[in-house]
Amino acid sequence: MKNLSSEKKSYLAGFLDGDGSIYVRLKPNSTYRFGYQMIAYVAFFQSGKHREEFEKVCKLMPYGLMRARKDGILEYTISKQEEIIEFLLNIKDFLVMKKPQAELVLEVMKLRQDINDKKDFQILMNKIETFRELNYSKKRKTRIMNP
Amino acid sequence: MKNLSSEKKSYLAGFLDGDGSIYVRLKPNSTYRFGYQMIAYVAFFQSGKHREEFEKVCKLMPYGLMRARKDGILEYTISKQEEIIEFLLNIKDFLVMKKPQAELVLEVMKLRQDINDKKDFQILMNKIETFRELNYSKKRKTRIMNP
Repeated sequence: MKNLSSEKKSYLAGFLDGDGSIYVRLKPNSTYRFGYQMIAYVAFFQSGKHREEFEKVCKLMPYGLMRARKDGILEYTISKQEEIIEFLLNIKDFLVMKKPQAELVLEVMKLRQDINDKKDFQILMNKIETFRELNYSKKRKTRIMNP
Repeated sequence: MKNLSSEKKSYLAGFLDGDGSIYVRLKPNSTYRFGYQMIAYVAFFQSGKHREEFEKVCKLMPYGLMRARKDGILEYTISKQEEIIEFLLNIKDFLVMKKPQAELVLEVMKLRQDINDKKDFQILMNKIETFRELNYSKKRKTRIMNP
């Protein structure tokens, strides 16, 4: 991504704003220390009819995985934490619609690196809840930590 | 559009590639000289849930109209010929997926300005058919001119 021109970064920001997704959530999973696994990704979608053209866009990024869904939609996903951080840092200033989401995910990633106790984890949980509000601005699901 | 930075133009190209449409077709209409009306537009789509953010994107362009569809999708459309030409000339070099469509629409717009007889119009029709193939690459509908 470092070698990418600012025009190309801006192009990817536009593509993501138009038809992509920046996502983070906590999935209950008892094998994790605080009872939740953090799932985050940046995804691009496109109809399978335009695979060849879509691949040209995906090739601009040095990471990510293509998956064809059963309904024919192609999903290109960046899901490794360090790749999400690198990608968002590179494009966030060019985003027009999803900049708050990008900034929040970057904040969440940072909080996650400094978790020592339950209190820290609760702060992370609350931050992730504000993300849900950004994306849906509908009902808020309050997550309570298991004792 | 002339005052827009190359980053912003590239952003709009990415947005259009991700979730937009470049479109041209001939609609049978007997009040037109050769029996067809040409319909062309550039459109951007977005869920009505994100209207405020979407409007920020639309405001980058000095033209276009917003319409809310019954299914909740917002459509922002550029449909005046001279605006389509100006817009596509400004962003086409930044397109990764829809560049052939942009070039073809620009070619069609040019052909249209020089139509003198039926033969010229048939050339325009054939050109528009190649556009259909670009977008759907499925069945080709052969249009025959009325005598």
